[in-house]
Amino acid sequence: MAPTVDEVLAGKYPAKAHARKVAAYLREQGLQTDGVIYLESQKTKLQEDNDTDQPFRQRRYFFYLSGCLLPDSLLTYHISSDKLTLYIPPLDPESVIWSGLPVSPEEALEAYDVDQVLVTTEINPALAHLGTQVGKDGTVFSIQGQISDETSLVPFPKTDVKAVKTAIEECRVVKDAYEVALIRKANDVTAKAHIAVYKAAKTATNERELAAAFIGTCIAHGCPQMAYPPIVASGTSSATLHYVHNDQSLYDPATKDRKLNLLLDAAGEYRTYAADVTRSVPLSGTFSPESRSIYDLVLQMQLESLAMIKEGVLWEDVHTTAHRVAIKGLLKLGILKGSEEELLQKRVSVAFFPHGLGHYLGMDTHDTGGHANYEDKDSMFKALRVRGTLPAGSVITVEPGVYFCRFIIQPYLDSPELSQYINKDVLEKYWSVGGVRIEDNIHVTKDGYENLTTAPKSLDEIELLANGS
Amino acid sequence: MAPTVDEVLAGKYPAKAHARKVAAYLREQGLQTDGVIYLESQKTKLQEDNDTDQPFRQRRYFFYLSGCLLPDSLLTYHISSDKLTLYIPPLDPESVIWSGLPVSPEEALEAYDVDQVLVTTEINPALAHLGTQVGKDGTVFSIQGQISDETSLVPFPKTDVKAVKTAIEECRVVKDAYEVALIRKANDVTAKAHIAVYKAAKTATNERELAAAFIGTCIAHGCPQMAYPPIVASGTSSATLHYVHNDQSLYDPATKDRKLNLLLDAAGEYRTYAADVTRSVPLSGTFSPESRSIYDLVLQMQLESLAMIKEGVLWEDVHTTAHRVAIKGLLKLGILKGSEEELLQKRVSVAFFPHGLGHYLGMDTHDTGGHANYEDKDSMFKALRVRGTLPAGSVITVEPGVYFCRFIIQPYLDSPELSQYINKDVLEKYWSVGGVRIEDNIHVTKDGYENLTTAPKSLDEIELLANGS
Repeated sequence: MAPTVDEVLAGKYPAKAHARKVAAYLREQGLQTDGVIYLESQKTKLQEDNDTDQPFRQRRYFFYLSGCLLPDSLLTYHISSDKLTLYIPPLDPESVIWSGLPVSPEEALEAYDVDQVLVTTEINPALAHLGTQVGKDGTVFSIQGQISDETSLVPFPKTDVKAVKTAIEECRVVKDAYEVALIRKANDVTAKAHIAVYKAAKTATNERELAAAFIGTCIAHGCPQMAYPPIVASGTSSATLHYVHNDQSLYDPATKDRKLNLLLDAAGEYRTYAADVTRSVPLSGTFSPESRSIYDLVLQMQLESLAMIKEGVLWEDVHTTAHRVAIKGLLKLGILKGSEEELLQKRVSVAFFPHGLGHYLGMDTHDTGGHANYEDKDSMFKALRVRGTLPAGSVITVEPGVYFCRFIIQPYLDSPELSQYINKDVLEKYWSVGGVRIEDNIHVTKDGYENLTTAPKSLDEIELLANGS
Repeated sequence: MAPTVDEVLAGKYPAKAHARKVAAYLREQGLQTDGVIYLESQKTKLQEDNDTDQPFRQRRYFFYLSGCLLPDSLLTYHISSDKLTLYIPPLDPESVIWSGLPVSPEEALEAYDVDQVLVTTEINPALAHLGTQVGKDGTVFSIQGQISDETSLVPFPKTDVKAVKTAIEECRVVKDAYEVALIRKANDVTAKAHIAVYKAAKTATNERELAAAFIGTCIAHGCPQMAYPPIVASGTSSATLHYVHNDQSLYDPATKDRKLNLLLDAAGEYRTYAADVTRSVPLSGTFSPESRSIYDLVLQMQLESLAMIKEGVLWEDVHTTAHRVAIKGLLKLGILKGSEEELLQKRVSVAFFPHGLGHYLGMDTHDTGGHANYEDKDSMFKALRVRGTLPAGSVITVEPGVYFCRFIIQPYLDSPELSQYINKDVLEKYWSVGGVRIEDNIHVTKDGYENLTTAPKSLDEIELLANGS
């Protein structure tokens, strides 16, 4: 039987395997890997004009090769001897009085998948020693702008401050079982928090109550950090892709009517790994006929996209499929007019689905290695955050959406060429729907995919929860 | 009848009055105030190696003279003409698609207590014009390190990048009615969140559930930002003054017994203004006899301190009173031995109450203008964040505590001179209490004070809430 998420996560984060993978990547690039990787964690920093620390976010490059969440730490990986050393801050008696005992080197060696733990004050002697271990072409690989002034890389014949950054970014695309378990865990907590919001949606009076239900549930279940700023958007605000206010009344200020739907794009982060999940929920317990049509359509866009996913699929093809489904659906609803091919060729569906179908997901919500081309002249592809084929082991979001956003659609209505494809009278009935997006986190496999997202998705399930079941 | 908090806050933040107050302060310093104050808001900044914004925290100097929470904004105050101008970011069509319509200049003029609203692209022409309005000694007052490269202060004969920072810091000490209302509002929300934690304390299993109850309640009631990182410390962690983990089991890992108490030092921030509130709550519904004794003692320290507070009181005297009460109480409990005077003179109570009695509170939790002397050789005063007399209108925390922290007390036990004052056998019974701190926010008046904190404080009230009443 496959181990459970918690069983996988009871082991150590595979820092050593990641170090080896990065070294292999450097070697494949033809680089002389008789050398050392040197990385620094994020430092504690004070807020400007204030004596409180800034919110801490561990540096992802460092975490990938250490699994260590401590600030002010360092690591070295001596490639030829395969020795990974972590350096943690030394005990500071003054700080113990205020903050308690820090992690000791012994505890760190127990907790992390490294060969040795020293304290950070030992870094320069350690680097000097490592410098004697490498040959005359021996290189220290580090990251520009992430090397402390106190650290001396002089002991090494060569310094490369670029290659290891790219190497880690590319290695991060394909996740191992431990990383997939971390994303599953983030998703499991996120699902609980989504459900808490669906259940509160009918009785809440302001977006902030629903944001509170989401964030509170995440914290209670072990995700004190959000993967990204939650989008808790009611009514037509759900058409604003990156809505951040989360403080508006759930009643229309002009008509006093209850707004139709809430778009919830929110997820927890678990030990630096993100989930990224979006759903819509009716604010009255029941979707309106127009909302239901759009929800059905977006779900169809997602299901047909998912059906294509397996190792080697071209992401542009999946994205195009989602647009084709959108076009068919909008034609059927009478919002669009014309032939499917013509609408696709004229990029009319971009007015309703203006963003990319998804992005890699990992330690960053928009994870590394996607090779987007934001300069693409083609409006259907320029916002796509992943280009090319998907490797097995990658984790990608699949998040189609249909939005009725005046700022985006108006230029199409104003265009003599494009306005002929849109039926304004039918469109009129849909503005109040705002936008619907359905987003899951997908682990690509050789033959297909695993959906890591466990939040309820069917329209009926969501309506049941929104009605207190 | 005095207006309610919500009535006061329905008006505008008194930015103009603050500008005048700061200008008057500069004038009192003998500075030539034929000139202009130029301040910048905090800028939006990306997280390192990531496309998400860093959490935004408005720059306090800018807020004090504008009441404006927008990032990337500017202000000018022309002192002699008493004209306050706010500059907000111009509309960026690309950004509207993702983020919706920004605040317009008309809306900003309606919302903020300023004379004029322009967009930030107009700043250099505006400064050039202002430069012609000031005399040959005309000075532009701004803050070092907080002036954008794009901004030209060349139009002014003189530039002063220090005086206005100090001026604002000193002006902030005395709060006006609007600021007091903001701190009250932060306290009202904080009280709701404290109560939610007391109610959950008996059934929760991990600190994180109590952190969730606190933060969720704050968000739901309009305080999405915490005033400082919440301290949700169970058992002996409550003796760690700046505990931050908030993720430990409420059962002792060795004995499996339920830990005794939770120390909750947590508060919301309301439109940049902080509350700062600490209470202890039993994790079983009932305080143990030792916990009860210490709670009673700390409350007595606070009540006797509060009784002294009015305009002009010397803060060192209040702090000393708290120590005297602590000494009397610890003598009565048998933890200390000797005479009150001798114990005070030898600073033995510092082992149990090592921090200062309180600090100014406002836009920063540790607010400006306290004139601490961290180099003070006297252990009883070196951690005191406010020195000297308290003016009417200042808001200060009164937060005595008694802690049983091994790192802090052990050196006293190891000292031949000081160990004679401590009864180790009696002390032994108190280690499990951890620490107790009771903290309220106090508005100093001519004849006394107003307590702005509304969280329950009596031992009986807290026990009732902890038992589900």
